[in-house]
Amino acid sequence: MIDPRLLEKENVLYEEHDPSYGAVYIYEKHLVDSRSRYQKIDVIETQHHGKILLIDYYMMLTEDSEFIYHEMMAHVPMAAHSQAHRVLVIGGGDGGVVREVLKYPQVERVMLVEIDEEVIKVCREHFPQLARSLDDPRVEVRIEDGVKFVQETDESFDVMIVDSTDPFGVAELLISVDFYKGCRKVLGEEGVMIQQMASPFFTPDIFVKAFHNMVEVFEHVSPVLVPVPFYVSGHWSLGFASSSERHFRKEVSPGSWRPPGELKYYNPEVHRAAFCLPNFVQLLYERAKETPELREKPF
Amino acid sequence: MIDPRLLEKENVLYEEHDPSYGAVYIYEKHLVDSRSRYQKIDVIETQHHGKILLIDYYMMLTEDSEFIYHEMMAHVPMAAHSQAHRVLVIGGGDGGVVREVLKYPQVERVMLVEIDEEVIKVCREHFPQLARSLDDPRVEVRIEDGVKFVQETDESFDVMIVDSTDPFGVAELLISVDFYKGCRKVLGEEGVMIQQMASPFFTPDIFVKAFHNMVEVFEHVSPVLVPVPFYVSGHWSLGFASSSERHFRKEVSPGSWRPPGELKYYNPEVHRAAFCLPNFVQLLYERAKETPELREKPF
Repeated sequence: MIDPRLLEKENVLYEEHDPSYGAVYIYEKHLVDSRSRYQKIDVIETQHHGKILLIDYYMMLTEDSEFIYHEMMAHVPMAAHSQAHRVLVIGGGDGGVVREVLKYPQVERVMLVEIDEEVIKVCREHFPQLARSLDDPRVEVRIEDGVKFVQETDESFDVMIVDSTDPFGVAELLISVDFYKGCRKVLGEEGVMIQQMASPFFTPDIFVKAFHNMVEVFEHVSPVLVPVPFYVSGHWSLGFASSSERHFRKEVSPGSWRPPGELKYYNPEVHRAAFCLPNFVQLLYERAKETPELREKPF
Repeated sequence: MIDPRLLEKENVLYEEHDPSYGAVYIYEKHLVDSRSRYQKIDVIETQHHGKILLIDYYMMLTEDSEFIYHEMMAHVPMAAHSQAHRVLVIGGGDGGVVREVLKYPQVERVMLVEIDEEVIKVCREHFPQLARSLDDPRVEVRIEDGVKFVQETDESFDVMIVDSTDPFGVAELLISVDFYKGCRKVLGEEGVMIQQMASPFFTPDIFVKAFHNMVEVFEHVSPVLVPVPFYVSGHWSLGFASSSERHFRKEVSPGSWRPPGELKYYNPEVHRAAFCLPNFVQLLYERAKETPELREKPF
């Protein structure tokens, strides 16, 4: 029997995390209810959290919380590298990661490779505070498959940020060995990459598979943990990788990094903390180094 | 219009976080559906997360994730103190915090003060892996109001852990200046306390009010951040406090602490990380030192 308190609500959109658990968003307006060539795209307007973007019924961003995810995705690799001039963003069609990257004056070029033009179009209309970053003269936008792009391009980048939907279904190739080989090529010997991965608690199998493949290609890898409001609860993981130690910094000294403007979330203390792994995450990561398949949960 | 995918589910229990956002639990069995003198108590059994305890329709614990919250609530203060012999737990009728505290061989006495006998009774039946800790000979259980207890008792304790429902409604007195004065008295000059507080992102007003009052009574205070699966997403905050610097340790050296058995979450790295505050949390905490009321969100 469905909870009667829920039935009293109007305009409820459901996000399924697993067959026993999910989230509901109660909206005032359903601003976008469309289907692109690749995916379902919804934008709703809520009373308490502003506008919310959902792709395939998974929450991508809310206006009031997007600073957390976007700051961590951009500033962890940018601060670690410290001298990035050329940045590649795969996915990220909302423009949030690009907005953060452009805060660094030394950045000369940002390439955004987004497979779904419709995401950019929707965000330009409904999230201009993010998407207007794509109009910056330093930014080039390509509507293209990111996996193909990294394999075919001759360009190289200092920092690469993979801001995709969750790595299953359409995005599953983004955690493949072939993709990471392409990433390694565009990053050269000293570039760093970061990628949104999975919840170690809710989807430990995806966590293990993704890190297994990343470790197979890169010498230096670590999970980065960040609790993202409205993502499934608990920690969310990002994967941080490089071929060399040079810019693979788990700690950022105040000497090598100054805030590029006002940030609401990121600071060097938070950077360091994000690399501290709880025992069960450390255990999952050790498993990932050995095998791509998680036979049973170690917690 | 309610999402039709939700209507297809059977046995849905709704947890409202705010008027725009909530969680749903899809259960196989509704094992407990009762009302005590103080509160509504539900236990459901789910396919993916084991049994779940809800109080007043807020998730208290799930069998598969309770280790995270209970380890952080117990081991942060126990490791910081390093020599705690006498421990007071306010609330925590499920027994999870007591189970963790008893892992330290030097612990001589644990006093659990729970206002609602029904919570203990339900947990003894449905969560014996937690509640059986209450049968340990070192444990004394009192069914009593924790606020009154700390004001009236003559006993003193090295570590105090406040594991209550969220600090509004019935539990609001647990963030009052009077309560903290009682805590200070039972802790003496060198004891430490930890208390579950609020989400800095979702309920910054409660966060500010609670820390304002804690700072008014204790010289040494810090938020401790931990992402708790199934709590409202993002960081959850605990309040850590003491009258003196002696055991108020934000870092735990391997020399002063050894794991008291196998832990699935806590380690000294995680201890240190939990004290690293993102900018918006630091800002909220600075506000809390000045005023108990948050007029507008600083993020």
